[in-house]
Amino acid sequence: MAKKTVPYKIYLSEDEMPKVWYNLKAAMNKQHPPFLNPATLQPCTADDLRPVFCDDCIEQELNCKDLLIEIPEEIRGFYKMYRPSPLVRAYCLEKALGTPAEIYYKFEGNNTSGSHKLNSAAAQAYYAKKQGLKSITTETGAGQWGTALSMAAAYFGLDLTVYMVKVSSEQKPYRKEVMRTYGATVIPSPSDTTAAGRKILAEFPGTGGSLGCAISEAVEKAVTSDSCRYVLGSVLDHVVLHQSVIGQECKIAMEKYGIEPDIIIGCCGGGSNFGGLIAPFMGDKIAGKNNIDFIGVEPASCPSMTRGRYAYDFCDSAKTTPLAKMYTLGCGFMPSANHAGGLRYHGMSPIVSELYHDGYMRAVAVEQSKVFEAAEYFARTEGILPAPESSHAIRTAIDEALKCKETGEKKTILFGLTGTGYFDLSAYKAYNDGTMADTIPTDADLAKGFASIPDIPQNK
Amino acid sequence: MAKKTVPYKIYLSEDEMPKVWYNLKAAMNKQHPPFLNPATLQPCTADDLRPVFCDDCIEQELNCKDLLIEIPEEIRGFYKMYRPSPLVRAYCLEKALGTPAEIYYKFEGNNTSGSHKLNSAAAQAYYAKKQGLKSITTETGAGQWGTALSMAAAYFGLDLTVYMVKVSSEQKPYRKEVMRTYGATVIPSPSDTTAAGRKILAEFPGTGGSLGCAISEAVEKAVTSDSCRYVLGSVLDHVVLHQSVIGQECKIAMEKYGIEPDIIIGCCGGGSNFGGLIAPFMGDKIAGKNNIDFIGVEPASCPSMTRGRYAYDFCDSAKTTPLAKMYTLGCGFMPSANHAGGLRYHGMSPIVSELYHDGYMRAVAVEQSKVFEAAEYFARTEGILPAPESSHAIRTAIDEALKCKETGEKKTILFGLTGTGYFDLSAYKAYNDGTMADTIPTDADLAKGFASIPDIPQNK
Repeated sequence: MAKKTVPYKIYLSEDEMPKVWYNLKAAMNKQHPPFLNPATLQPCTADDLRPVFCDDCIEQELNCKDLLIEIPEEIRGFYKMYRPSPLVRAYCLEKALGTPAEIYYKFEGNNTSGSHKLNSAAAQAYYAKKQGLKSITTETGAGQWGTALSMAAAYFGLDLTVYMVKVSSEQKPYRKEVMRTYGATVIPSPSDTTAAGRKILAEFPGTGGSLGCAISEAVEKAVTSDSCRYVLGSVLDHVVLHQSVIGQECKIAMEKYGIEPDIIIGCCGGGSNFGGLIAPFMGDKIAGKNNIDFIGVEPASCPSMTRGRYAYDFCDSAKTTPLAKMYTLGCGFMPSANHAGGLRYHGMSPIVSELYHDGYMRAVAVEQSKVFEAAEYFARTEGILPAPESSHAIRTAIDEALKCKETGEKKTILFGLTGTGYFDLSAYKAYNDGTMADTIPTDADLAKGFASIPDIPQNK
Repeated sequence: MAKKTVPYKIYLSEDEMPKVWYNLKAAMNKQHPPFLNPATLQPCTADDLRPVFCDDCIEQELNCKDLLIEIPEEIRGFYKMYRPSPLVRAYCLEKALGTPAEIYYKFEGNNTSGSHKLNSAAAQAYYAKKQGLKSITTETGAGQWGTALSMAAAYFGLDLTVYMVKVSSEQKPYRKEVMRTYGATVIPSPSDTTAAGRKILAEFPGTGGSLGCAISEAVEKAVTSDSCRYVLGSVLDHVVLHQSVIGQECKIAMEKYGIEPDIIIGCCGGGSNFGGLIAPFMGDKIAGKNNIDFIGVEPASCPSMTRGRYAYDFCDSAKTTPLAKMYTLGCGFMPSANHAGGLRYHGMSPIVSELYHDGYMRAVAVEQSKVFEAAEYFARTEGILPAPESSHAIRTAIDEALKCKETGEKKTILFGLTGTGYFDLSAYKAYNDGTMADTIPTDADLAKGFASIPDIPQNK
């Protein structure tokens, strides 16, 4: 298709918005190994998952056949409140860099939750409502996911209980207020509302909590009630599916203007945003229709793909979840306390892991001082204060654009800008003050993490 | 024009974006009385203002003739980074209210500064650059204006010094970090960098500062340097002019879909957002082309139009500025410390004041508990956490929509949603905790404020 003049921002019209999610698994030649029940080491069945997750989400989790899955009209109605998100041509950044490359980014931060998380929160809340449930529950660390879910729960009329890591709820009291404004009940974790919480409190009376503990409390609340289910914001296949709305919008917008990306870049924590961004483009690559260079960017402080192992591991640090085959640093791995850039998850989405393992994409790890340098540069040239997570993708996009400047190549680069930096200003403060250190784990640090990977036959 | 189906969000294309600002003064039958030099009580000339403001801004300030003023291409380039802002059809709010009214809002919060302030920051920074200046300076209280200006200064390559009220810079350290990320120098005020600051520090060593003091420091910095000018974010006519980009976009979008507003509502602090929103619609009303009901909404805690006097008064509490003829509570008036809803300015834009005085619009005052109730309702139904300031307009829009529900009238309501509530979560916390009180000044409180209005012949 002939290329048209591209505006600063491409917004799809409502008619052009995607009506289907792209189920990347159905396009893959090889499926990731199934989740395992940690007690039996047998593949998890839908029945295993039913006390925890909503039925429709389980069906999507296990669906490897249907390439396109309809987005229910109710969810599309919710999406219309804050989508389409703009696909931005980074004219100002290109000019500042003096690169012949064309740079585009898909900005997911223009909604009150501040990130892409809302795409799956909306879907999961809807399916809970559809199933006739009264309430949902989840955990949150920094609060981004909890905020997104509180917005979705308010919209669909569900009660929501968020277990928020206690130290976060104390350090980020305002995140809690957003959730409360949307009607969520926010409980600092560990709490005395669950057996798991009471046990931790008895053992460690002064603890500030952990994500693992908050997950345990939320899952307990879900499995001990018929009318409540647990909702997760990343890693799982159905979350990647919901996030494919990002890639679907990108593809429609780019085709409309005849833009063909050479490189697609996304930051990788749990992998759902990256998986969603690349989904339809990767499906085409697997079918031999393009040769896009897909780059997942992770922090050098938490390098699950570039330095991790491909093994079965727990999804949580408390070792309560099913085992997933994924790139992992070990469920006991903790990034250095100096690490301020987010993307702290020890593992990686099984879908993204399989793609990486099979050579369909590459991964790079970047140091946080370089990430914040890119964030500041981007803020000043493009006018958006990016989330530290998203700034990993910015860093790599700038690096690729500068390579083009050297070689004179006019590549087309697309990256995902997943969120805003409004709620990460303590990290920006450290950068502005010059007190931010790079924190790369030593081989000994990694070995300690690897020791927490379960020693099961499947990992031999 | 026939009415088309209206999407949730109307985005103008780049080609449709306005190329001119609307100079409302040129459409008015009667001009507001001129600013007066407080020493001579004579009208301020351009030469009086030249040491303080940029030349182009002064020209615009005094221009009552040209109805349409071209937006320079460089400013339109900046606007393209974050504009057009969406004109949103509040389908979800209408449904929740069960009103036959159609409700629209123009959302100015989708940019990193979080508000409409950026529209004038961009223009004023550009004009400073065009004049060959090296630096600009301003004051900021809560930090919204300082953030907007730091973004504009970074884009146009100007040094920026922001005098931030000391107590705010301590209570809102993260606002300061956004400005620092954009390269601004943020100085807690009072400071030892100016004679005005040193004088205050000597008199009141432990003071947390005030906006009046911060203004004095910034103006001093400007007038003592040939290459620096002072920049103001509201009240003045040229700021209203720049903010007319809001109304221009609204008018183009509404005409495109055949939408004719019956009521236009905006919150009023200094009046620049309201003046900008209504500009082209009010021009048509003055010319007899429509009969729109314009409503300016102010806090009951700071009711400059509904309970103030129309008089010459200082624009700042430190009594250093020219005198403006405006609705005022007296430059010495301070809203109660319990007031959390913003819009704390003692006066009102001279343009808006004149329109109000001449009967072209009405004003209502709303109590903050009702404002936050509307804010929460709006957040839950429309998915956007609104700024407390903007929520004054939401309150009145909901009230008008509920009147339509009673009468069955199908009115079309437009209101300005000027910003997001991300940085006002302490106020939301007070509301969520149930500790928010309404604070309506008594007649005695008002009399105390009125006593600070200068006793000059023009006020007899």
